Amino acid sequence: MAAGSAKPVLVRELLGESLREERTAQGRTLREVSQLAKVSLGYLSEIERGQKEASSELLGSICDALGVPQSSLFKTLSDKLVMSEMITPIPVRRREPVAA
Amino acid sequence: MAAGSAKPVLVRELLGESLREERTAQGRTLREVSQLAKVSLGYLSEIERGQKEASSELLGSICDALGVPQSSLFKTLSDKLVMSEMITPIPVRRREPVAA
Repeated sequence: MAAGSAKPVLVRELLGESLREERTAQGRTLREVSQLAKVSLGYLSEIERGQKEASSELLGSICDALGVPQSSLFKTLSDKLVMSEMITPIPVRRREPVAA
Repeated sequence: MAAGSAKPVLVRELLGESLREERTAQGRTLREVSQLAKVSLGYLSEIERGQKEASSELLGSICDALGVPQSSLFKTLSDKLVMSEMITPIPVRRREPVAA
């Protein structure tokens, strides 16, 4: 990995992972949750794999379908981010003037 | 508000609010942060007002520009969601069969 270009932690990847972990922990299928959340099975799968960003409305629907509060999902995400940030250092704040 | 149709909590609104609170607490301008995050001032303003969804990449850039870890932003979001969920009840999990 090139110096100064650490791979950024992508929220959608950790969020998708959290959603998939919750769904599988409940023993539920992509089909069941996608139908309840009114999203296509393929799209939900892409969200779980971190390949698509879910809109706020869709995230609400998916949490509703899973029966989990959004606060819980984002607490899990925050915890995952803490772990990632231990591995990927946070870039130093850049305060150099921006060229006009 | 009509029964059974409580206004959902939109993550982008609380996330935008969190970003704006962090920026103003630092005494920094939209212009400064937008230049550092390489996003237009207008777009950053729309994100802060909850009118646009920020991609994961852009969220990473904004957090970088603000010098805050993403974990901290999403912990704040989770806390705000807890407060919202106290006001807006979480819908009961719907498990009725979906029509084929």
